[in-house]
Amino acid sequence: MIEKAELQDLVRDAAACVRATNPMAPSITNTVTINFVANAQIAVGGSAAMVYLPDEGEAMAAAGPAMYINVGTLLPIYEETLPRTAARLAELGKPWVLDPVAVGIGEMRTKLLAGFKEQKPTIIRGNASEVIALADLWGLEGAGGESTVRGVDSTQGVDEARAAAVAIARYTGGAVAVSGEVDLVTDGEVVALSHGGSQFMTQITGSGCSLGGVCAVYAACAKTPLAAALAAVNVYNLAGARAEAKVKAPGSFQAAFLDELYLATPEDIAANPFDLEEA
Amino acid sequence: MIEKAELQDLVRDAAACVRATNPMAPSITNTVTINFVANAQIAVGGSAAMVYLPDEGEAMAAAGPAMYINVGTLLPIYEETLPRTAARLAELGKPWVLDPVAVGIGEMRTKLLAGFKEQKPTIIRGNASEVIALADLWGLEGAGGESTVRGVDSTQGVDEARAAAVAIARYTGGAVAVSGEVDLVTDGEVVALSHGGSQFMTQITGSGCSLGGVCAVYAACAKTPLAAALAAVNVYNLAGARAEAKVKAPGSFQAAFLDELYLATPEDIAANPFDLEEA
Amino acid sequence: MIEKAELQDLVRDAAACVRATNPMAPSITNTVTINFVANAQIAVGGSAAMVYLPDEGEAMAAAGPAMYINVGTLLPIYEETLPRTAARLAELGKPWVLDPVAVGIGEMRTKLLAGFKEQKPTIIRGNASEVIALADLWGLEGAGGESTVRGVDSTQGVDEARAAAVAIARYTGGAVAVSGEVDLVTDGEVVALSHGGSQFMTQITGSGCSLGGVCAVYAACAKTPLAAALAAVNVYNLAGARAEAKVKAPGSFQAAFLDELYLATPEDIAANPFDLEEA
Repeated sequence: MIEKAELQDLVRDAAACVRATNPMAPSITNTVTINFVANAQIAVGGSAAMVYLPDEGEAMAAAGPAMYINVGTLLPIYEETLPRTAARLAELGKPWVLDPVAVGIGEMRTKLLAGFKEQKPTIIRGNASEVIALADLWGLEGAGGESTVRGVDSTQGVDEARAAAVAIARYTGGAVAVSGEVDLVTDGEVVALSHGGSQFMTQITGSGCSLGGVCAVYAACAKTPLAAALAAVNVYNLAGARAEAKVKAPGSFQAAFLDELYLATPEDIAANPFDLEEA
Repeated sequence: MIEKAELQDLVRDAAACVRATNPMAPSITNTVTINFVANAQIAVGGSAAMVYLPDEGEAMAAAGPAMYINVGTLLPIYEETLPRTAARLAELGKPWVLDPVAVGIGEMRTKLLAGFKEQKPTIIRGNASEVIALADLWGLEGAGGESTVRGVDSTQGVDEARAAAVAIARYTGGAVAVSGEVDLVTDGEVVALSHGGSQFMTQITGSGCSLGGVCAVYAACAKTPLAAALAAVNVYNLAGARAEAKVKAPGSFQAAFLDELYLATPEDIAANPFDLEEA
Repeated sequence: MIEKAELQDLVRDAAACVRATNPMAPSITNTVTINFVANAQIAVGGSAAMVYLPDEGEAMAAAGPAMYINVGTLLPIYEETLPRTAARLAELGKPWVLDPVAVGIGEMRTKLLAGFKEQKPTIIRGNASEVIALADLWGLEGAGGESTVRGVDSTQGVDEARAAAVAIARYTGGAVAVSGEVDLVTDGEVVALSHGGSQFMTQITGSGCSLGGVCAVYAACAKTPLAAALAAVNVYNLAGARAEAKVKAPGSFQAAFLDELYLATPEDIAANPFDLEEA
């Protein structure tokens, strides 16, 4: 099992590399939070580019060192865009992040998410209900639990999704990040539980979606998917806690949170409190 | 005619119920202000979920206790999505809110809005020109007036739309909210004129759209469409006035306004000044 | 060659006319920054309306005194919407602004941008790489340089795009604005170099897109395309510098920047430092 100090070094190095190299992590993502995703990616030191069309998804897969696919607000063209983009990413061996928003709702979403089993997303970021539902959709053994997705909100705790997250990570060989009061990140071998954050992160839209986008930025630089996902989760918990201390309500929180994402140093990000356990 | 105190109780109860039960009010809404709609819905205590596809619209109609349809930035697929969603809402007897943005512009918009006459939206939220134009499109008697829509802006005052709003409410059996310097809310029997708000609400995009989304959140809880619409209009007038006192310009106003939506109590919302008249 | 004082008068008059007449400058623009575009247009005194469908694009071309087309996040329907809208604008002789976002990526984007050569956009606003690539795509002589577009980011300096900008402006008979540390605006006869702005403008998404939208607002009022483009670039440089002095990070910068757009007077805008040279 990886030592905590070693993992912290990987997190710090990933964050420092992002600041130094400004990697572009293109996205196909929902229209609700697309602006927040882009601004969060830029705030941590990356660069953003969003597309909808199939050949543009493929071009972005080739152009960026890592990519982000979020299945919120599906458009008809995504039936073609998402599989073609994921296939190109797999072909090129590029790391990519999947946010299985609202898995279970709608025919196209189910078909697309089922299809991604083949391409094995490098990192999957979701709430507890979504991670449980995805493991179920993919028919992974040992995932346990039964999902109760309600639109885009989780109705289940992170603890309940632990088995599903571990099962997915073992299947993909990548990492899974489950968002909740304590955030869980696993590569199937270890489970990191990251602390911090803010109550206001559940009282704005987009904290989850943008976390996925930031995972992709770190995936462009990190040595392992686990380090990328933990860097993202740590900077979110750090920035969330710092921003909450400065505001009284969620309207002001958004700007304060982006400010703190921008101001966090690689050392700060590595030092955000987390527990490390065997999976 | 309902007593003012009784209406205030209904408003307070609706707002308290929303805070207690966190109802999800899914939306099909324009991309310009979609983020602001979601954040406003969350700030008052509700939950948001946005979709574009026909079967997802139907799924959301079934999943949420109330829904919001806004016809800004129409996409080709809406030709199918909106009628199917509205039909399902009617079938299920779910309350829903229509914002007839820019009625009169484009063939699809006209066709969709004409079609909604059959499903009778529970609440219609628009500016004066839009409400007049919708009554005209629906051929309602006694609506009077002639609309002069310019893009998404109103070129007419709330007073001019009073007859149209009353005629629509009598036809649908629901409520109509007309936004302006003083906001008019009617169920065809009474007219409530709500005071407050801010000049900055016309100097940002989305104060109208998000008000529609918040109407849907309250419609999930309120005993009557009138109480839901008035709760939404009142919290907007209250939060607008409070936010304006804290800022000097519209950029800062947005965050301050969301903060005040979040901080308003059910008692505050019920107590926002309004006049009550016979329709 | 136009005198600097004369150009400043034209800039001041355009800004004053916008404040006095609240012109609507409709847009077909990307979903990433669509909200920011609308709010920036409103902040300087204009009005916004966004559409996607072909007949709505044509209706907006007829309804507004000027229009904005930005080719980010292309949707399938744009294949029809953008040529029809541009054709109507040309037919009506209305000024319009093109932002050739990420020129070179994707088949549809290339085809659309190549096609716009015929309609001659009144103002083109892009970063250095985009302007060089557009001049190249249009096969303009004397444009020089070779483009290296990376997603939506420029990898080249404004100086490198000077020849391309001048060549485009001479071809269209309009103006070209190249965004960078110093912003270049040219009508093919003179080159204005506008100073100010903020490092944070590159650390948020949408400062370029929204500048295009604001160019369209001023184009509705200005006597010349050069005056419109320079008014927009000047108010951006002024507001950027003022906003930066008030914040420490890009999250807070966005609201502060919109505030300063709103607070800038026509005299302030005309007085923002710029150099004027022969092209």
